[in-house]
Amino acid sequence: MLFHVRMDVAIPHDLDPGRRAELIATEKARALELQRAGSWVHLWRVVGQYSNISVFDVDSADELHQILWSLPLFPFMTVTVTALTTHPSSLSEADG
Amino acid sequence: MLFHVRMDVAIPHDLDPGRRAELIATEKARALELQRAGSWVHLWRVVGQYSNISVFDVDSADELHQILWSLPLFPFMTVTVTALTTHPSSLSEADG
Amino acid sequence: MLFHVRMDVAIPHDLDPGRRAELIATEKARALELQRAGSWVHLWRVVGQYSNISVFDVDSADELHQILWSLPLFPFMTVTVTALTTHPSSLSEADG
Amino acid sequence: MLFHVRMDVAIPHDLDPGRRAELIATEKARALELQRAGSWVHLWRVVGQYSNISVFDVDSADELHQILWSLPLFPFMTVTVTALTTHPSSLSEADG
Amino acid sequence: MLFHVRMDVAIPHDLDPGRRAELIATEKARALELQRAGSWVHLWRVVGQYSNISVFDVDSADELHQILWSLPLFPFMTVTVTALTTHPSSLSEADG
Amino acid sequence: MLFHVRMDVAIPHDLDPGRRAELIATEKARALELQRAGSWVHLWRVVGQYSNISVFDVDSADELHQILWSLPLFPFMTVTVTALTTHPSSLSEADG
Amino acid sequence: MLFHVRMDVAIPHDLDPGRRAELIATEKARALELQRAGSWVHLWRVVGQYSNISVFDVDSADELHQILWSLPLFPFMTVTVTALTTHPSSLSEADG
Amino acid sequence: MLFHVRMDVAIPHDLDPGRRAELIATEKARALELQRAGSWVHLWRVVGQYSNISVFDVDSADELHQILWSLPLFPFMTVTVTALTTHPSSLSEADG
Amino acid sequence: MLFHVRMDVAIPHDLDPGRRAELIATEKARALELQRAGSWVHLWRVVGQYSNISVFDVDSADELHQILWSLPLFPFMTVTVTALTTHPSSLSEADG
Amino acid sequence: MLFHVRMDVAIPHDLDPGRRAELIATEKARALELQRAGSWVHLWRVVGQYSNISVFDVDSADELHQILWSLPLFPFMTVTVTALTTHPSSLSEADG
Repeated sequence: MLFHVRMDVAIPHDLDPGRRAELIATEKARALELQRAGSWVHLWRVVGQYSNISVFDVDSADELHQILWSLPLFPFMTVTVTALTTHPSSLSEADG
Repeated sequence: MLFHVRMDVAIPHDLDPGRRAELIATEKARALELQRAGSWVHLWRVVGQYSNISVFDVDSADELHQILWSLPLFPFMTVTVTALTTHPSSLSEADG
Repeated sequence: MLFHVRMDVAIPHDLDPGRRAELIATEKARALELQRAGSWVHLWRVVGQYSNISVFDVDSADELHQILWSLPLFPFMTVTVTALTTHPSSLSEADG
Repeated sequence: MLFHVRMDVAIPHDLDPGRRAELIATEKARALELQRAGSWVHLWRVVGQYSNISVFDVDSADELHQILWSLPLFPFMTVTVTALTTHPSSLSEADG
Repeated sequence: MLFHVRMDVAIPHDLDPGRRAELIATEKARALELQRAGSWVHLWRVVGQYSNISVFDVDSADELHQILWSLPLFPFMTVTVTALTTHPSSLSEADG
Repeated sequence: MLFHVRMDVAIPHDLDPGRRAELIATEKARALELQRAGSWVHLWRVVGQYSNISVFDVDSADELHQILWSLPLFPFMTVTVTALTTHPSSLSEADG
Repeated sequence: MLFHVRMDVAIPHDLDPGRRAELIATEKARALELQRAGSWVHLWRVVGQYSNISVFDVDSADELHQILWSLPLFPFMTVTVTALTTHPSSLSEADG
Repeated sequence: MLFHVRMDVAIPHDLDPGRRAELIATEKARALELQRAGSWVHLWRVVGQYSNISVFDVDSADELHQILWSLPLFPFMTVTVTALTTHPSSLSEADG
Repeated sequence: MLFHVRMDVAIPHDLDPGRRAELIATEKARALELQRAGSWVHLWRVVGQYSNISVFDVDSADELHQILWSLPLFPFMTVTVTALTTHPSSLSEADG
Repeated sequence: MLFHVRMDVAIPHDLDPGRRAELIATEKARALELQRAGSWVHLWRVVGQYSNISVFDVDSADELHQILWSLPLFPFMTVTVTALTTHPSSLSEADG
């Protein structure tokens, strides 16, 4: 099941630099792990924004919530979730 | 170069049914053609909406504009374009 | 899988009255059928609005889209879909 | 009488961790108590958000206000209240 | 139980003048009737708008919905409903 | 002359508790005084919000501004002012 | 008493041209009359818009409503009313 | 050349009181100076808001920017600039 | 004096095709004429929109208004005007 | 390839003054460097705002992102990116 997710990140400018660096590093490790596991299927940076647009392939909305809720940067993100379905004109099996 | 495009379609309810059917058929043919040509790389339906979320891979913003402007349903669409770039945590070459 | 759906209805005032009556009757029949089938699990009217707030229990986002897209009043609705998941403080099994 | 309530939680990131933990624990205890008492009839988590969508069954709008106002996390919530009524196509007695 | 209701009226400019006049006259008759019955307790015009701000005193949200839904101008109104409760600093019994 | 005023209060969570208590107590005293003087004619709490909806009866817009500007909680309020006039269908002299 | 009023005009493109011309001519005559009478004290065109920004000096909000409601173009305007008062740093008596 | 400017002021509640008082005093002095010089031609307080609505008469947009940018409270203001021109129905020479 | 102008065009789909073609042709002729005259200094198409972003160099806001108001497509445009001034870091004399 | 970028700057009022000055100086140096290199082709100040409107000429969206992301003031900016293309009525080669 596919979900389109946009994440806009806003880390407070006065957060401890060590804490910030650690959050970003663990966020990256988690993103790589989820991509390797096949649930985070697309991940793009939005030009000129501290934001990404992603597509997740999960078994259920519950699984998606667990993934998003446990992201290290989740407390500093505005997350927008949009459920996707196969487009009748799509040729791609991966997008179905 | 990748662009994220959302298209929200609103065909007036009093449009001639033959004209409507023709527009939808030519739109579909054009979508298939652009997917086969490799420029319309992702095409998803938004659940519960007469809308799609798409990703285009084009040589330039000019090429994207020519594609969108000439879509049969373009006059009845609200189009939102977002430029994408490679995310530093992305593993996918196709998303780069 | 649970989805929260709000439907705001706006039938054009100049729609043929017979067409309007037919749409409303077939919409009602479809709503009853989907409730009996167990997919449309909650259906409330919003006070002072031609709108409903509903909860659907479906196997997939695709199934939800097929249900919404084929509603007789779909062309005259603004539909807002929100994916739900179990709340850690919820006691209700039905809400899980 | 039924009310639909959405609660979006935003606890300041620099709140004392002990205070935060205590607020969340007492919020949970209060939610369980109100569910057992029959006033908080539905409680769902919104996927990807620190938010819930709830339905309350109360004797009056005053009772609902007392409940919401006294929630431990109330000072950190954005609350949206929507009055509900029976939908003429609803089969559910509990939703009436 | 008190509800605050704002009604913004937008009658299409091409509505038949006789139909318009009849709608306005029956709306006025209904407003007078509901005020005499004690359910429509305040009714003000918003300066410079075809809008009113009203307060209703009803036994339930269901009763309010029946009142609003059956207003002759309802199909041409945008209605905003806000539940009210007694303010702890209010001296007025009628506002309680 | 009647004005409809909505006040949404947002006291910073880190304000000194003694200062907060003092502000709320002086705000209440001022609200009672203005109600007794006949200028603050309606005062309702919005359900589920730290907000009120009020109606003021003043000699001029200047008088209303002096009242609002000098409220103890004014620096922590978002205030929305709407001028009211007699509705041609209103039966109430007090609303005129 | 001073009120700031913005009027955004949107005459339907399919309105009868004779009716349109008559509306515009009577609107202009009314604007001149109200300026000569001293109630419409400022009238500016917004650059690039079919809109004006105006200031009215009236005895009451009721008087302002009667003026706006009876403008020939009122049914085709979006009107925004803002109550003004003397600024403590203003030198102008006319603005007081 | 006339520009309509709205300034909404939001001084942080924890700004040093001496700094706040100094800012307000120098802002007032500057406003008086600019009124005497003939560039700040209207200055009104918005009722119930820490805001003003002003009209400036300047030789160029550059001059307006220099004025606004150098206001002592500029860092704490949200400023909205609207270019004005003579309204064809205006009788006032000063508004031309 | 430089102004940034965005024009979003929405020609009604049921406008007479001959009228539409004539409007577009005269709009183009006017745009060329104003560019040659030096007042319309930049004109870009927004990708995926029936919109342009332009910069005008005019002697006054009045001149800009006369230009915009008399554009053939003006009745079908949403126009947004933003006054520009020299940026202290700009190297371009033409942008000054 | 041309992109229209608006940058709205909001430096926290409690940022260390030395850090602020350094950020502004390095931002200016970087803006000059990018203009000399030919990628930052237009740079205007928005009147009355701590904002600029810019046009960038880059080889790709990736290049634009690298430029924006590395601006010294990027963490304190809201950035809006709009892809541009040649307007069919434009006479300017530089705008193509």
